[in-house]
Amino acid sequence: MLTGEKGDRGDRGTPGKAGVDGPPGFTGVSGPKGSKGDTGTPGDPCKTQQSSFSVGRRKALHSADYYQALIFDTVFVNLDEHFNMFKGKFYCFVPGVYFFNVNIHTWNFKETYLHLMLNDRQQVILYAQPSERSIMQSQSVMLALELNDEVWVRLYKRERDNAIYSDDVDVYITFNGHLVAPKV
Amino acid sequence: MLTGEKGDRGDRGTPGKAGVDGPPGFTGVSGPKGSKGDTGTPGDPCKTQQSSFSVGRRKALHSADYYQALIFDTVFVNLDEHFNMFKGKFYCFVPGVYFFNVNIHTWNFKETYLHLMLNDRQQVILYAQPSERSIMQSQSVMLALELNDEVWVRLYKRERDNAIYSDDVDVYITFNGHLVAPKV
Amino acid sequence: MLTGEKGDRGDRGTPGKAGVDGPPGFTGVSGPKGSKGDTGTPGDPCKTQQSSFSVGRRKALHSADYYQALIFDTVFVNLDEHFNMFKGKFYCFVPGVYFFNVNIHTWNFKETYLHLMLNDRQQVILYAQPSERSIMQSQSVMLALELNDEVWVRLYKRERDNAIYSDDVDVYITFNGHLVAPKV
Repeated sequence: MLTGEKGDRGDRGTPGKAGVDGPPGFTGVSGPKGSKGDTGTPGDPCKTQQSSFSVGRRKALHSADYYQALIFDTVFVNLDEHFNMFKGKFYCFVPGVYFFNVNIHTWNFKETYLHLMLNDRQQVILYAQPSERSIMQSQSVMLALELNDEVWVRLYKRERDNAIYSDDVDVYITFNGHLVAPKV
Repeated sequence: MLTGEKGDRGDRGTPGKAGVDGPPGFTGVSGPKGSKGDTGTPGDPCKTQQSSFSVGRRKALHSADYYQALIFDTVFVNLDEHFNMFKGKFYCFVPGVYFFNVNIHTWNFKETYLHLMLNDRQQVILYAQPSERSIMQSQSVMLALELNDEVWVRLYKRERDNAIYSDDVDVYITFNGHLVAPKV
Repeated sequence: MLTGEKGDRGDRGTPGKAGVDGPPGFTGVSGPKGSKGDTGTPGDPCKTQQSSFSVGRRKALHSADYYQALIFDTVFVNLDEHFNMFKGKFYCFVPGVYFFNVNIHTWNFKETYLHLMLNDRQQVILYAQPSERSIMQSQSVMLALELNDEVWVRLYKRERDNAIYSDDVDVYITFNGHLVAPKV
């Protein structure tokens, strides 16, 4: 029995499905290091405590009272105004040891009599007997001061004229003080 | 004669290969800024090296010996007892430059003759000729001291009375010294 | 009638397309934190600024000119040579407040007349009237100096001899100065 020819080959199958997605890439590299922090604040500076005055007087003077403060009219140095020109007194704002020095010119035939005072207590004297010759004299002392202590020059008038000589041209009369060692 | 049927469609193709790896991720962001540094160390503390004395004498005095130390009886300041009241001498515990100052009151008709001494060497003189008038005189000097140096006031008696006047009430006679600049 | 055989099965389909690329990797992690900032600079150290001189004169002196500088021949202290011995002048290298002090011995029957000078300006006087007795006198002042300021002692000769006594043995004549408070 005769058979017919073989049929045509079937159609090609459809393409396979697409492959699965590839795996994720590697993790990115780490970010760069952050910038350096700011420099810290500077340390505390060293405190240089200071207190200094130097005043002079150009006007001659006779004591009017038994006791009176010597007033000055000329400022050479007065750091932070620790010396009160109106009262003629140094006020201690920085406790510690101070050096004080006073220089005056005596007056012919008159007495010169004064004390360097700490508050109301006399510390050292500057005294000149009356004489036909006027001269210059000095006195110095150091004192350990507490806050608000007052240091000043007190004129002490007794029965005789208590006078300090000066003229308008020159400064003979000076009062100096400065901190030597702050209290620790 | 008849042809046979067309063959069946072929099988679907196999799935494709997997995709390739994804690209690397992006670089991470920068890290945060570092924290601020610590505050600096405090400045060198003020080495408040200190040495100060201020002494006075209330008693009048006549030299007994050819040479003798002037002794004091009143203390205004004596930091850490660097001034030895028994010997009348300042002993250097802090090497450096010091300021020294001495003030005295002369005695009528008597000589006043003294030196400011560094160890056994006289540095400066304070001298007053005899006179019917007593006055106040001063002398000052600065000295660069080494450890254990001694600074004192030496009375120098010659053929005449060597005297310093005082009374019991006031302090005329003072001896002051203080560190000005520690040795570096 | 007989049909021919069924055709062969079609070929297998072609493989699927490759899968799509994988997704990007994750973003990298943040960078590490920056390092801590540097420690702050230390606080200002105690500036131990120093300036001190103490000079003396062993030779007696008569003024030759109307005005002239008092020259010294003996050095007690002269830190960093701020005092110029040739000119008899202190030059300010460290601005600030200074204490100055001068001590002299007058000459019998002669005048002693001098000023403590800041540059060309007289600040304070040290004066002694002629007398048959020679004495010691002192003067002190404090001054706020700027760089290069000059401080010196000026002799002022008028119609009379202007003289300062000394002998070869002792130092009567001294000029002292030191920094009290550096400018801030």
